[in-house]
Amino acid sequence: MPARKLTFIPGPIEFSDEVLQAMSTPSEAHTSPEFVAVFQEALKNTRKLFRSTDPSTQGIVISGSGTLGWDLAGANLLNKGERALVISTGFFSDSFANCLKVYAGADKVDVLKAKKFGAVVENSEIESALQKAKDDEKPYSVITITQTDTSSGVLSDVEAISAIVRRVSPDTLIVVDAVCATVCENLEFDKWGIDFTLTASQKAVGVPAGLSISFASGRAIEKALSKKEPVGFYTDLQRWIPIMRAYESGKGAYFATPSVQLVHAYRQSLREILVGPVTESFSKHKDASDHFKAKIAGLGLKFVPLTDDIAAHGLSVIYFPEGIEGPKFLSKVAGKGFTIASGIFKGYQDKYFRVGHMGISAIGSRKQELDQCFEAIKSSLEELGYKH
Amino acid sequence: MPARKLTFIPGPIEFSDEVLQAMSTPSEAHTSPEFVAVFQEALKNTRKLFRSTDPSTQGIVISGSGTLGWDLAGANLLNKGERALVISTGFFSDSFANCLKVYAGADKVDVLKAKKFGAVVENSEIESALQKAKDDEKPYSVITITQTDTSSGVLSDVEAISAIVRRVSPDTLIVVDAVCATVCENLEFDKWGIDFTLTASQKAVGVPAGLSISFASGRAIEKALSKKEPVGFYTDLQRWIPIMRAYESGKGAYFATPSVQLVHAYRQSLREILVGPVTESFSKHKDASDHFKAKIAGLGLKFVPLTDDIAAHGLSVIYFPEGIEGPKFLSKVAGKGFTIASGIFKGYQDKYFRVGHMGISAIGSRKQELDQCFEAIKSSLEELGYKH
Repeated sequence: MPARKLTFIPGPIEFSDEVLQAMSTPSEAHTSPEFVAVFQEALKNTRKLFRSTDPSTQGIVISGSGTLGWDLAGANLLNKGERALVISTGFFSDSFANCLKVYAGADKVDVLKAKKFGAVVENSEIESALQKAKDDEKPYSVITITQTDTSSGVLSDVEAISAIVRRVSPDTLIVVDAVCATVCENLEFDKWGIDFTLTASQKAVGVPAGLSISFASGRAIEKALSKKEPVGFYTDLQRWIPIMRAYESGKGAYFATPSVQLVHAYRQSLREILVGPVTESFSKHKDASDHFKAKIAGLGLKFVPLTDDIAAHGLSVIYFPEGIEGPKFLSKVAGKGFTIASGIFKGYQDKYFRVGHMGISAIGSRKQELDQCFEAIKSSLEELGYKH
Repeated sequence: MPARKLTFIPGPIEFSDEVLQAMSTPSEAHTSPEFVAVFQEALKNTRKLFRSTDPSTQGIVISGSGTLGWDLAGANLLNKGERALVISTGFFSDSFANCLKVYAGADKVDVLKAKKFGAVVENSEIESALQKAKDDEKPYSVITITQTDTSSGVLSDVEAISAIVRRVSPDTLIVVDAVCATVCENLEFDKWGIDFTLTASQKAVGVPAGLSISFASGRAIEKALSKKEPVGFYTDLQRWIPIMRAYESGKGAYFATPSVQLVHAYRQSLREILVGPVTESFSKHKDASDHFKAKIAGLGLKFVPLTDDIAAHGLSVIYFPEGIEGPKFLSKVAGKGFTIASGIFKGYQDKYFRVGHMGISAIGSRKQELDQCFEAIKSSLEELGYKH
């Protein structure tokens, strides 16, 4: 049993000692040369997470939670009355749609849902929806893809969907919610033609919650900057883009006070992640995920994602076996020193559990903790009478 | 000279070792019983900062900067077309007006500016503006008061202005920007009839930047909850109020992942502040401010606030004496180990500097650092040829 309870939910994850030390950085002025250099490095390295070298793009790092990223997309990339298509593979995709409805209008956001919980939306359906909207002369201004929906553990094929969008509806801005995918799953921002991706600090980025991290294409920035009537203030990229450009070029600028300590921690975690190419993080997360999922399958448990090829690599989403009561099981696992997460998709929330396997305790120097977590799951099931 | 450069700007301030240690708290799930207890204590103690015991009020603690608090007010307390009156004593009051214009409409926000930089707005003018709006049958839905405008160091008399509002225009919601005032200046939320106050973590609250802290009256909550068409998602109090009520009552809830480590640090800082009644913090900040300002006056320097009785106690805002070049002076002071701040009010930004004196290094166990900062200012002036 670990010395303290370890966090194996799909974010926040466990943090390295060096990241936690960076959280304790003594005070620095937000425009001091010392802090400007830290923020500059963090913004430059943010490009590497998304494999972007196009100088017209821009990383945006703001105090806030992952949810704020949805508002940044909605407030800046959609005008009232413009249409959006949301590809939904679970609770978080649906919530993103609810956010976009605030900005576009409730009747302007179409949600293309996976036919079953645990499935992806078929590419042919996406193509048809885009084509129909064009034929009706009501093309979608924005499409959103949730790369990993944390509620289902389903991984959408962003590369394939983006290719469809670029072919069928090239003026549609491609927005990717990568909150639970960044650092776990490949995202080739420039090559795939992505316009906006949003993520958060507390998942595989490996930093305590509190930073909204986004990345915008030149085309997305152009749309945001040309907006005549901003619909928010804190969410207004017309205010943030110049600030981020200033910090990345090594100059301080002020719109709102950045979280100095979280940015220090982010800088540190990026250094740890980027000790090799980011693609190594993707393959390591895949290996850890494959290994963990094989052991779970070995217990006879079933996964929410309907097939292996659509299962995300940052978490495992697993049905409780028959006869096992969720709350009892989760508290037994917690008693053995591991916090894992309950379900969150309506109608199914009591039927499954979720285990995050991202960052240090899955692919880093403490990766044996994931094995220990598995043992806690296994013995908890056995103690509750589960037999395979 | 201090062992490292100390931050004496009007926020972020210096932090206690215990607060910085809390920033390094190992990961906890945001709905774990351990974290729920921490957030519960922080929310309960938030009431004490504003001396509120009315159970219909609610503290709101969200990942974000102080600026986000303006959006919370604008997005929830104003409907499009409703009018707001902004009492302006500087850059931050004006910026708050710019935020409200996004929500109410550019022509719906009247800014009542102080006649001179460094002055307050006269109470008689405020009363006239409120009365005229009522007579014209276009009453203000919201009035905003910036308790301490960090750009000018001017302190507005929130108690007196609130009394005028309640007498002349009692339906007007009273909103106080207390970002640079909380823990320094008295704010009797219930007694004065305040409806909404917003602050941030990195000033006298004594916590690294990254938390937006607000406090809403029953009347403000009612207006927010009755809003038919929310205009933001992350800024929507209809989503946040149930979450905050849940955490304060000891239950986890989810809308967006809270910053676990910043909330730990906030809980710790509140414990330190509330070791005595919060009124002691007010009087200690006044004493430290009086002492520092007397020494500055002793050097023959002039303050931006036109009279002593309208000078805020969390910072001093001081004109450069003739012949002293701002950038040279600030970098000399920095070379002696103290970061102080330049001016920020248009037309005056090169004419003055600002020194923050809040929290541990002004009224706490390290208060000798403020004296050391004064010595650095004094010797820097002398070295640049200033003679008094």
